[in-house]
Amino acid sequence: MPVEYTKAVGDTHCCVFGRLLFRVFEEVVLHSMRYRDLIPVSFILGFYVTLVVGRWWASCHALPDNADVALLLATAMTGKDIRSFELRSRVVRYVNLTYVLLFRHVSAAVHHRYPDVQSLVNDRFLTEREKEALEEAETRGCQDTKWLPMSWCCQLVQAAREEGYIDCEGDKNALVNALVTLRGQCGRLLAWHHYNIPLVYTQVVTIAVYTYFIFSLVSEQYLDESRHYPRYEADLVVPLFAFLELIFYLGLLKVAEALINPFGIDDHSFPFLNILEDARYSAFVISHTRYGEKPPTAHWR
Amino acid sequence: MPVEYTKAVGDTHCCVFGRLLFRVFEEVVLHSMRYRDLIPVSFILGFYVTLVVGRWWASCHALPDNADVALLLATAMTGKDIRSFELRSRVVRYVNLTYVLLFRHVSAAVHHRYPDVQSLVNDRFLTEREKEALEEAETRGCQDTKWLPMSWCCQLVQAAREEGYIDCEGDKNALVNALVTLRGQCGRLLAWHHYNIPLVYTQVVTIAVYTYFIFSLVSEQYLDESRHYPRYEADLVVPLFAFLELIFYLGLLKVAEALINPFGIDDHSFPFLNILEDARYSAFVISHTRYGEKPPTAHWR
Amino acid sequence: MPVEYTKAVGDTHCCVFGRLLFRVFEEVVLHSMRYRDLIPVSFILGFYVTLVVGRWWASCHALPDNADVALLLATAMTGKDIRSFELRSRVVRYVNLTYVLLFRHVSAAVHHRYPDVQSLVNDRFLTEREKEALEEAETRGCQDTKWLPMSWCCQLVQAAREEGYIDCEGDKNALVNALVTLRGQCGRLLAWHHYNIPLVYTQVVTIAVYTYFIFSLVSEQYLDESRHYPRYEADLVVPLFAFLELIFYLGLLKVAEALINPFGIDDHSFPFLNILEDARYSAFVISHTRYGEKPPTAHWR
Amino acid sequence: MPVEYTKAVGDTHCCVFGRLLFRVFEEVVLHSMRYRDLIPVSFILGFYVTLVVGRWWASCHALPDNADVALLLATAMTGKDIRSFELRSRVVRYVNLTYVLLFRHVSAAVHHRYPDVQSLVNDRFLTEREKEALEEAETRGCQDTKWLPMSWCCQLVQAAREEGYIDCEGDKNALVNALVTLRGQCGRLLAWHHYNIPLVYTQVVTIAVYTYFIFSLVSEQYLDESRHYPRYEADLVVPLFAFLELIFYLGLLKVAEALINPFGIDDHSFPFLNILEDARYSAFVISHTRYGEKPPTAHWR
Amino acid sequence: MPVEYTKAVGDTHCCVFGRLLFRVFEEVVLHSMRYRDLIPVSFILGFYVTLVVGRWWASCHALPDNADVALLLATAMTGKDIRSFELRSRVVRYVNLTYVLLFRHVSAAVHHRYPDVQSLVNDRFLTEREKEALEEAETRGCQDTKWLPMSWCCQLVQAAREEGYIDCEGDKNALVNALVTLRGQCGRLLAWHHYNIPLVYTQVVTIAVYTYFIFSLVSEQYLDESRHYPRYEADLVVPLFAFLELIFYLGLLKVAEALINPFGIDDHSFPFLNILEDARYSAFVISHTRYGEKPPTAHWR
Repeated sequence: MPVEYTKAVGDTHCCVFGRLLFRVFEEVVLHSMRYRDLIPVSFILGFYVTLVVGRWWASCHALPDNADVALLLATAMTGKDIRSFELRSRVVRYVNLTYVLLFRHVSAAVHHRYPDVQSLVNDRFLTEREKEALEEAETRGCQDTKWLPMSWCCQLVQAAREEGYIDCEGDKNALVNALVTLRGQCGRLLAWHHYNIPLVYTQVVTIAVYTYFIFSLVSEQYLDESRHYPRYEADLVVPLFAFLELIFYLGLLKVAEALINPFGIDDHSFPFLNILEDARYSAFVISHTRYGEKPPTAHWR
Repeated sequence: MPVEYTKAVGDTHCCVFGRLLFRVFEEVVLHSMRYRDLIPVSFILGFYVTLVVGRWWASCHALPDNADVALLLATAMTGKDIRSFELRSRVVRYVNLTYVLLFRHVSAAVHHRYPDVQSLVNDRFLTEREKEALEEAETRGCQDTKWLPMSWCCQLVQAAREEGYIDCEGDKNALVNALVTLRGQCGRLLAWHHYNIPLVYTQVVTIAVYTYFIFSLVSEQYLDESRHYPRYEADLVVPLFAFLELIFYLGLLKVAEALINPFGIDDHSFPFLNILEDARYSAFVISHTRYGEKPPTAHWR
Repeated sequence: MPVEYTKAVGDTHCCVFGRLLFRVFEEVVLHSMRYRDLIPVSFILGFYVTLVVGRWWASCHALPDNADVALLLATAMTGKDIRSFELRSRVVRYVNLTYVLLFRHVSAAVHHRYPDVQSLVNDRFLTEREKEALEEAETRGCQDTKWLPMSWCCQLVQAAREEGYIDCEGDKNALVNALVTLRGQCGRLLAWHHYNIPLVYTQVVTIAVYTYFIFSLVSEQYLDESRHYPRYEADLVVPLFAFLELIFYLGLLKVAEALINPFGIDDHSFPFLNILEDARYSAFVISHTRYGEKPPTAHWR
Repeated sequence: MPVEYTKAVGDTHCCVFGRLLFRVFEEVVLHSMRYRDLIPVSFILGFYVTLVVGRWWASCHALPDNADVALLLATAMTGKDIRSFELRSRVVRYVNLTYVLLFRHVSAAVHHRYPDVQSLVNDRFLTEREKEALEEAETRGCQDTKWLPMSWCCQLVQAAREEGYIDCEGDKNALVNALVTLRGQCGRLLAWHHYNIPLVYTQVVTIAVYTYFIFSLVSEQYLDESRHYPRYEADLVVPLFAFLELIFYLGLLKVAEALINPFGIDDHSFPFLNILEDARYSAFVISHTRYGEKPPTAHWR
Repeated sequence: MPVEYTKAVGDTHCCVFGRLLFRVFEEVVLHSMRYRDLIPVSFILGFYVTLVVGRWWASCHALPDNADVALLLATAMTGKDIRSFELRSRVVRYVNLTYVLLFRHVSAAVHHRYPDVQSLVNDRFLTEREKEALEEAETRGCQDTKWLPMSWCCQLVQAAREEGYIDCEGDKNALVNALVTLRGQCGRLLAWHHYNIPLVYTQVVTIAVYTYFIFSLVSEQYLDESRHYPRYEADLVVPLFAFLELIFYLGLLKVAEALINPFGIDDHSFPFLNILEDARYSAFVISHTRYGEKPPTAHWR
């Protein structure tokens, strides 16, 4: 090439520079084609998407489920008096409080809805006094204040047993066990939220796909047919195939991007606000309903 | 090509246009061949099918199993009087009701068989009064009315213990535990139903396979032998290989399509109606059968 | 080609037809070579074999294990009198009966050994009266009669507790729990047996491998060297490489075929008859053996 | 080639035969090159190694852990008298006996260390009388004599409760439960030992890798440059690349070979002898240690 | 080449040696290109990274969680007197001690912070007397002294029940069970730490990637255009594509290297020191907090 360059300058014809430039462009196109074959983008994407989908699914199945607690509550605390009603309501409220504290931590949407603890008080998830207790615990170095309501919950069940609102030991044990199991589920969701796919992996894959796409686009450019480059015998005006590849590879990358953060605020995230509402009202109704009787009026407190 | 085009127009011979058209066709064929090599369709399909089969299998093993409840019922409530019989029947009925409410939710076939709650009443899954209770709970904001019968179930067992139809505490606990476990299984099936493979993944794979097939078909067209295009030295009249590829790739795609929705109404879906029937009668017979005695007549209520 | 054909017919020389035929053959060979490169048989096989081995292993670990029941039986029912001995033997027998009923259902070998229920009676797995009970349950619409012996089992343990042969409540609960757990294992084995890899997947893979092999064989045929087809410069008399590929791909397919049905009658199946025998005698000896005493004589009933 | 052969024979020059031989050699080399491209050895190896590592890891996590038993023993049997000490020691000894019986079965190294039951007696794992009991059980058709000591263990705990050395029912239940759980772990280790990767899979992979290596070596031989075979333009004296491939593929195969049998006697096997020793002494010390007191002297019996 | 060499020597022109050297260089470059195509580095990396990420994630979810113990402690030991406070504090301290002993074993960072047992005494994790007890146990051959505090813990709970600080049997059982479960979690973390990915696998992959990179670099060198080597028609001054490949493959390798040892001291390791601090203070606060009362002052001992 340097030789050609010298010759060209000697000619001092304007079009020679154009031709030289064209040669350089051709080289870039041919190299892009070669490089495009080398990046194993489908492979890297395959493994990456499988991993992301795996985490997404594990997170799905780690969503906590408070139905067992509500069920056992209705079974163990069968009293129809006002104190029984109050006790059941309070246990359900503390479970909901744990939910909302956990969801505020993991979900951007719930955090946006409840930006501070005061908003939880306003929405009757906890009382002023309980708020102070949480805050005091935090000042004492307790990082996991979200488990405190669960502790109150268990203590309440214990108290209910002592006060005679739960008839037998076994029921109390089952209920405490269900509460501890629920907390374990919450802890597991927290872990899935905390340990994401390493950022560097995502970066490598994203860079690979976009670089591939650029090379793919360049390599489809029109080359002078008369030089008979292999695989450039025929040429289309629109880089149709580059666009199709764009759809496939970027499509797969979008799958991964949509699923990598199920705790966000977009459409593909888990609907934490709905889950919260459902859990809240369902647990309330289930825990108070007794067969053959009308469910109690929902005078929430 | 533009140059050739101008030359051709200059000739004004009819066949020249045909030849030009043929050149364009050749280009499309050659490009298709090139593109066909680029789409890593086997790879994407491999990962996708593995994922789909994985979900399908997990769903299989998430199908609930009421045998444990029936077994423990027969063990704990051993009375031969009419009240014991009634209690056992009712527990079994509530379990069946949970099944049918769950299956109506997840399976199109069961939903078609039981389109509304009245049809369940007609088929004696629940009484009119229970239907009202469910509906009232729903109006109160309980989204998970399908867990209500489980709650009644546990309360019934509790009552049976208090009335003395269950002899010892441990049996009652085991029974309540089995019921709670069964509900957990139902919840897991619900989760597998709810969280499907992201639609965009399925779309990308389907588009990739069909596009590949089209290019495969085009790329097998006959080209003028005299131009000696690489890989077009020999030519067959029928695009045999494109058809064979069709069988393989579309075959794999069909595997995935058949398994991606095991909750549907076609042949590859889980036979929810049969599972329901089996569970219904088996649980009834097992829970009432005592060794050395004839099983009771199935006077269902 | 059509042009050559016309020319050839014009020549009316015998050898021309032969040459034409040879050209067609060459085309087929060249196409086969091309096609052989396109089928991603190693890929499809890789995913398929991984899936099959996964299911096979899960089935291995789903094989039930009655040692816990035998162990707890020996711990809970410690009496040396004849009634204690009888109770333990009967519990063990019912567990064995569950085994044999389950294995008859899943294993062709066991079904061949025990073709009907009468053969089980002959081999002292159950009594005539129990056989009638099973049959009556079946006529009443119970599909899962194989769980009935487990129910009798639990009832027997319950009765033993009431008669005072089991000293404390906790032991009974542990025993019933072990029996329920064992039934769960049996149920899981049943599920692995029931939900096999979808047939269409197996078919696609098998067709792909055999088609590949045929093309591989054809593509190794001798071509006229003078035409200098790429990759046909050199030629061997025996299609050695096609045979080697046969060994690899068919070898992998055989791995899959051997493992896809571990419930069959051939060498690679689980040895259900041996498992049955082992479980039968081991459970009997373990449940009756007490430390410091000679194991009781095996007067089986 | 046959034509050339005839011509060559006609010439009757000595060097002609040499040239012919060289042509045959060239053909073999060129074919080897082609074949080398066809064997998807990296693919098959990838899936195979993944499977082997998966089994190896599952086996790691199936290694039993007797710490829970020792812990609960120290908690439940708190007596300082000689009988309490004896009871605890004996439970620990039976657990160790189960370990050694199991490990003798699965590990070549442990079997070599303890070739027969007498050697276990010599090393004080069991007494003469217990040895007789095991042997008698075996003659009665009990295949699983390794679970007998676990049965004795549970019976001992039961007896300790009856004699009053365990204060409360719950402790006994927890202890028996821990023993049963430990036996379950042992059973699972046995299953992982029993069900290995199918031999035919290993054979296919091994043959594929070695065949590939041979072809790789042959295909790197020097060819006459003047014939300008594609990819043979340049030539090195040492087949450097074949050696590098050897390192990679044989390296991966060695990974698989090292991990496929973790129950062997070599460096990559699990150190069963050490695990046994650790478990033996740790369990002894933990079960006897009480807070605030010196651990008892280890007068082993 | 030898022939050319002889000719060249005959010419005795200086530039001939240069040309010969250039030929050798060209051969190396062409071979490198060929070899680069042969190493399936993306494949090996894909499987390896998947495995490493799998282990990393399993380790994440094996991190122990002491919230359940704290919760049950607050539920079971509800006394407000100084002895109750002391008992709860001591149970929490022993749990923390287990944590720190375990973390010292698995994490380089924690080991660096607490190099010997004396430093633990200084930081009030254990008393001088307890330190002596641990050391004495070690001299008696107990390898697992890290489980001793858990044993003390259980004994303390047992003692608290006997002294009447825990009201009912069930609570004690639940607490002991939670402690045993926590120890199981610790044991599992230990196993994940102990059984790493086999070193030889890591070595093969690392060597493969770096060798590939070297060949990739060499193969991008400038070759004499006039010889028209396939794929060397165009040439760039900077080996741009080799650098891009460097980013992708080394990027993936770095992902694996960062995750293969989550127990180290760098940024990608688990933050064991933070986990330890959090667990320490959170457990203390949760176990002492009672609803409606101010959390007790943290007079740590």
